[in-house]
Amino acid sequence: MEHMAASNQKEKALQFRRFHEGPPILVLPNAWDAASARLFEQAGARAIATTSSGVAAALGYPDGEHISREMMIEAVARITRVVDCPVTVDSEAGYGATIDEVCQTIRAVIETGAVGINIEDSRRGPGRALADVERQVELIKALRELARSMDIPFVINARTDAFLLKVENAFEQAVQRLNAYRQAGADCLFAIGVSDAETIGKLAQAINGPLNVVGGPPAPPIAELARLGVARVSLASGLMRAALAHLRRVMRELLEQGTYTTMAGEMLTGAELQGLFVDRT
Amino acid sequence: MEHMAASNQKEKALQFRRFHEGPPILVLPNAWDAASARLFEQAGARAIATTSSGVAAALGYPDGEHISREMMIEAVARITRVVDCPVTVDSEAGYGATIDEVCQTIRAVIETGAVGINIEDSRRGPGRALADVERQVELIKALRELARSMDIPFVINARTDAFLLKVENAFEQAVQRLNAYRQAGADCLFAIGVSDAETIGKLAQAINGPLNVVGGPPAPPIAELARLGVARVSLASGLMRAALAHLRRVMRELLEQGTYTTMAGEMLTGAELQGLFVDRT
Repeated sequence: MEHMAASNQKEKALQFRRFHEGPPILVLPNAWDAASARLFEQAGARAIATTSSGVAAALGYPDGEHISREMMIEAVARITRVVDCPVTVDSEAGYGATIDEVCQTIRAVIETGAVGINIEDSRRGPGRALADVERQVELIKALRELARSMDIPFVINARTDAFLLKVENAFEQAVQRLNAYRQAGADCLFAIGVSDAETIGKLAQAINGPLNVVGGPPAPPIAELARLGVARVSLASGLMRAALAHLRRVMRELLEQGTYTTMAGEMLTGAELQGLFVDRT
Repeated sequence: MEHMAASNQKEKALQFRRFHEGPPILVLPNAWDAASARLFEQAGARAIATTSSGVAAALGYPDGEHISREMMIEAVARITRVVDCPVTVDSEAGYGATIDEVCQTIRAVIETGAVGINIEDSRRGPGRALADVERQVELIKALRELARSMDIPFVINARTDAFLLKVENAFEQAVQRLNAYRQAGADCLFAIGVSDAETIGKLAQAINGPLNVVGGPPAPPIAELARLGVARVSLASGLMRAALAHLRRVMRELLEQGTYTTMAGEMLTGAELQGLFVDRT
């Protein structure tokens, strides 16, 4: 990317790593296209994540690696092209059946200019279950080695789906897995599917690394998450779902009443829309 | 497209043409990606338009043919893939320097499954001015012939930028041009940059074909536009600008207060987001 030479990318990766050593807690909005990413940056986000379900929806697909690796990477590249801040990419389970294939995916993701990735320990589909923990540890070690070989210390955010899949002893499973992922080289540990303050607080105590949880309703507000020991809050598809719900309300009023009250309530001006990218041609 | 055989596309083009013979007046929401298009369709839109500035912004570019013809066509194809209703495409000035090149663009647009196009009589850039009227008439005749040769009676929405560019005697220029475009084979006549009821009413009287104007603030509500004789209302980038403004408000609250009040006010559920495309893999 023209505005992102490799040395710059290394610095950006280091900067993004430091954001995990807060305070302040790192609030990561999840973008799904260049417009949302640039809007978040202009609104003051220090770094931006992507949302796999949002990226897929913008392209016309449900979540769960239904889009090709190439489509995902092109979508990421459109985002890294236009924002200056660090970008971390929701790479789902890595768009590959083997550790080598996942490493190819992540290499391509980092080559777009991104400086962080999420990697999940379950794959959507029939009979979805947690991956073998040893296999996931091997994968994370391989990704750490990839970062070393690329000389880009990208942030590995290792996600466990133990809560999401409601496995037995989810808390113990999550702690055991996240600590194993940390030891394998993960920089940040992501527990999705947990939003009650008590569990989040206990989790932050029980794991040996920065904790990422999903914010937005019904999770506690950011200040409470910080107090509970959370290092990083992302929003998953929440921001896109809020934008689309608003759009649906605008649309229904337009089609059913033929009026523009909701629409007129808040609109970017044409100049603001153009201003997102006027220096990015 | 698998769900859009050619014969089906011809029927869809004919259906879309009939929508211009209202009542009811045709309200065309302008989508910028597959998610917005599908949301509009689910909300009850009879047909969907694209917005060039929205499509460009989603990809990270300002409006005005800064994206390549290929990028624009791929974006359109992602929309036509997921909606069943007629789609008409904002093709700006046609992404080409010659009539042949513009016809290549429009052929590719129609090959995605779209059944309508907008074509403008000015091209963004330094010294932007109205195209020579004779040249524009030749272009529209060529597009009409293209529709005939493809056996897809797509709707040509010929736009004049006379009001937008605030040319001298804009009203007379607009009428003269739109009537010339109609005679050349345009199906619908689009005056952008006019939103006062009096001018819109006079325009509807003075032109020899269906009139398209831009709705949304500050234009009169849909019922009044219908009463004034407007056949088709599109929203240009208004819907995207409303969605992004809401997103900015959600984002600012999140970053500045660390709370989710605006976000929680309206959100699609995860199931609703997945439901946009669950049968479109």
